[in-house]
Amino acid sequence: MGSEHTSKQFDAELEAVRAKVIKMGGQVEAQIAKALRALQEGDMGLAECVIAGDDEVNALEVSIDEDCNRIIALRQPEAGDLRFVLATIKTITDLERMGDEAEKVARMAKAIHQSPHAGYPEMVNFRQAGTLALAMAGKALDAFVRLDVELATQVLREDRDLDRVFHGIMRQVVAYSMEGRHGLAPAIDAIFAAKALERIGDHAKNMAEYVIFLVKGKDVRHISMEQLEREVGS
Amino acid sequence: MGSEHTSKQFDAELEAVRAKVIKMGGQVEAQIAKALRALQEGDMGLAECVIAGDDEVNALEVSIDEDCNRIIALRQPEAGDLRFVLATIKTITDLERMGDEAEKVARMAKAIHQSPHAGYPEMVNFRQAGTLALAMAGKALDAFVRLDVELATQVLREDRDLDRVFHGIMRQVVAYSMEGRHGLAPAIDAIFAAKALERIGDHAKNMAEYVIFLVKGKDVRHISMEQLEREVGS
Repeated sequence: MGSEHTSKQFDAELEAVRAKVIKMGGQVEAQIAKALRALQEGDMGLAECVIAGDDEVNALEVSIDEDCNRIIALRQPEAGDLRFVLATIKTITDLERMGDEAEKVARMAKAIHQSPHAGYPEMVNFRQAGTLALAMAGKALDAFVRLDVELATQVLREDRDLDRVFHGIMRQVVAYSMEGRHGLAPAIDAIFAAKALERIGDHAKNMAEYVIFLVKGKDVRHISMEQLEREVGS
Repeated sequence: MGSEHTSKQFDAELEAVRAKVIKMGGQVEAQIAKALRALQEGDMGLAECVIAGDDEVNALEVSIDEDCNRIIALRQPEAGDLRFVLATIKTITDLERMGDEAEKVARMAKAIHQSPHAGYPEMVNFRQAGTLALAMAGKALDAFVRLDVELATQVLREDRDLDRVFHGIMRQVVAYSMEGRHGLAPAIDAIFAAKALERIGDHAKNMAEYVIFLVKGKDVRHISMEQLEREVGS
């Protein structure tokens, strides 16, 4: 990433962008972890903390986006640098939306734990989906920072696991709801919480695809996992 | 958009990108309209047609993305041209995801109409949400093509209406499900169909925000509607 330009100032600007993305990623990971604990343990203080914390994530996205636009306009980056800046613009969009999903999980945690059916969440196993989604977010960010194609490919693979776990939760909710004691309202909250976790995985997958694009210069969206494994040769 | 560069060839390249985005937008609108008809009328041929058609939308996105990356790398566009290319890169991501949501609606249409509770969809009023989502997608694309800030602002306003309609559907599903005749499975399909329509509106809103950024050079994400109306002075 360093050989294509000579300006030290420009190097420093790219490094500053990378550091901001890491910071933003750290915040988003923390938001997801807190939202999960709020969902599982019913800690309403944590839920409020996540809801309040989304603004900071949003502000970072706007700031990084401006940095990238300025770099493209003023520095006219080439090759690897340009790919890095373009991948960053996309990565922060997904990070920001992961943050939105964390906020949704926190709102669902409030709705679930403050409802008259507060025993409900114990019937639904969010832990596996939550742990997977959080791990995928962390790995996608690490893959971006270290330009680690191997790790990025792992995230793509895990997204399939998360989809399976998500459908398992749907079956749990249906089975539980068949007992007919609670009506649909708490089931809807559980469904949306699970859906938000699944979408965090989707965004991690998007980020992993940008990493592969960044390193291999190859667009791997919309191709099958088998095809991808051949292409990246991992 | 024309005064900042002199190359006719470059003008033609930008025009070609714009034409491809219009084509992609047209395909996505058609996908949404077909998915809606499949949902409301139970036309399974249409549903299959939408599911098969998503590949074409995806291929267009990859192709436009490559065009934009090449233009940035080789043409080093400035000012308005650069903002146009960057807004295009983001716009096609949202168009592609709108296409994904249309495909989800088509899959839900199949699940709903092929289930033993096929009378179910008549109880849920998707029409208003679907009409709004489709109109928002169309307006967001028009706003992008004509750089129409007024129209873009209208899309942002309509997104609030769609959110209200979406929550109305949720209440309908809950009320209907309280009757307890059908279990949860068809309710889940209806919820995900409605959620997909709501997300089409979200993507239209994202596109509208890029239009305002493109014209005003101002980032309007994460600010309130009132603040926005002051900022764009519409």
